[in-house]
Amino acid sequence: MIAIDWGTSSFRAYRLNAAGVVVDQRSAAAGLIACDGAFESVLAQQLQDWDDGLIVMAGMIGSRSGWYEVPYVACPAGIDTIAAGMLEVTATGLPGRRIFIAPGLSDRSSTGLPEVMRGEETQLLGLLGLPGQINALEGDGTYTVCLPGTHSKWAIAKDGCISSFHTAMTGELYAVLRQHSLLGALMQEEVDDETSFALGVTTSSQAGGLLNHLFSVRTRGLFGELSSTQLPSYLSGLLIGHELQGLLPATKQVHLIGSSALLSRYQRALAMHGMESSVHPEVLAAQGLHRLARERDLLR
Amino acid sequence: MIAIDWGTSSFRAYRLNAAGVVVDQRSAAAGLIACDGAFESVLAQQLQDWDDGLIVMAGMIGSRSGWYEVPYVACPAGIDTIAAGMLEVTATGLPGRRIFIAPGLSDRSSTGLPEVMRGEETQLLGLLGLPGQINALEGDGTYTVCLPGTHSKWAIAKDGCISSFHTAMTGELYAVLRQHSLLGALMQEEVDDETSFALGVTTSSQAGGLLNHLFSVRTRGLFGELSSTQLPSYLSGLLIGHELQGLLPATKQVHLIGSSALLSRYQRALAMHGMESSVHPEVLAAQGLHRLARERDLLR
Repeated sequence: MIAIDWGTSSFRAYRLNAAGVVVDQRSAAAGLIACDGAFESVLAQQLQDWDDGLIVMAGMIGSRSGWYEVPYVACPAGIDTIAAGMLEVTATGLPGRRIFIAPGLSDRSSTGLPEVMRGEETQLLGLLGLPGQINALEGDGTYTVCLPGTHSKWAIAKDGCISSFHTAMTGELYAVLRQHSLLGALMQEEVDDETSFALGVTTSSQAGGLLNHLFSVRTRGLFGELSSTQLPSYLSGLLIGHELQGLLPATKQVHLIGSSALLSRYQRALAMHGMESSVHPEVLAAQGLHRLARERDLLR
Repeated sequence: MIAIDWGTSSFRAYRLNAAGVVVDQRSAAAGLIACDGAFESVLAQQLQDWDDGLIVMAGMIGSRSGWYEVPYVACPAGIDTIAAGMLEVTATGLPGRRIFIAPGLSDRSSTGLPEVMRGEETQLLGLLGLPGQINALEGDGTYTVCLPGTHSKWAIAKDGCISSFHTAMTGELYAVLRQHSLLGALMQEEVDDETSFALGVTTSSQAGGLLNHLFSVRTRGLFGELSSTQLPSYLSGLLIGHELQGLLPATKQVHLIGSSALLSRYQRALAMHGMESSVHPEVLAAQGLHRLARERDLLR
């Protein structure tokens, strides 16, 4: 089968053999924005040399601005309810293929705020499908999983279900502040400066709040405490530190899924809070989509 | 005399009579950015029909990117030390005039973060120069003053001195999120929706933190809880609410200085925290600069 994570700005496809092992993968700058609505022809073109009959997709492709809108499944959600929410798509431009889009998840958080995700749930399902790896770390069946990124997701999983989750707009805020604010104008190209990052994390736990702490990016630069190459790491530490301040779980162990450079920062920030963490690759999305296909009885 | 608040993006001039009363005022789109370094000729042009011999200025004109860099005066700072820090500028293009630039203030806050202001100190001095008005509200000599804006300032004044202050980048964050983020793309032109603003302030006091709460701008729109015309007011409530969460003072009374539309929002948010507030106009800057001129013995 072919598993696809199709988001707003990226397209990632994985080819899996009958045992569910990824044997090939590719990515393309063919996110939703780049497709201009021509999802069927883009998909046919991307997969012309992969002839597998089953395609299972997740991500913003199933959103209101995607190919077909697949309704959110409400938390707590297990593999069974998520698989039941998958929508089959008819595509005459891809003859001989069955194509499914997995639903995203919604949650009404404990604070009353609505939460949504599309795509990340497949990585969570992939992780929960690896019980040996997980059980080596915890024993009580409750796991905290963090997926850092533009919109970081913090999920609680219990007994194989995704119980609840929260979002933090950390990555997007970092990007808009770097590109469009007074603070970004003070910075040079980023180098990963661990000391400055740690200072940002430490500062985030002080009084004043994020809106006050952000101004210290300017003043620490003004008074020569940090250089223009150190300020990006400091800003990153402030923001990730505040993300943790707001969403740090009751558990002592966090599973991180994502790309290595960003995960390293989260690991350091978590360690400063006395938390343990383990890291997992984004390819878990393919395993999660494979689990959904098996649950829906699409594999034969 | 002529009092000038000369900032990065704006130029505001006031003409005062011998009694210190503002008899005329003007503003121009002649902020630092628009001057391209030609401060002397811009000033001569702006003041050609005002022949007063004394010009006292404050704001970013005294910064590193301004006309002359005037060193910051450290808090606690009274009228005497601020007046002593004023710098006289020589300008052959403005014959017969004496020109001074007031210093900004710096503070090493209780959390160890450096703080700076340039320009706002003149409004604070103007307010502190009106003892009748102030003493009607408090009696113990300690005042909390908030100047909302791109970079909001929260100052504590005691016994006529500016004791300490903090900054919150509330206005700048609002602007960059509206113009450059996913959240801004969901919004239409702002209308001041008091209910949505209040919902934002209430939400800001819940668990999760600002980075989490920002995502609710998206999800409350997605689920139809708020319309695209209500979302700007909700975002404003979230941000001002978090500013207050971080910097709310121990006093029960806040003096607000600024323009009326924004002050109304701060008054409502403060009332939701059980705080009283009174409002004062930005023209206090002229009164503060007049006090500095008198203290420096420049009026005759």
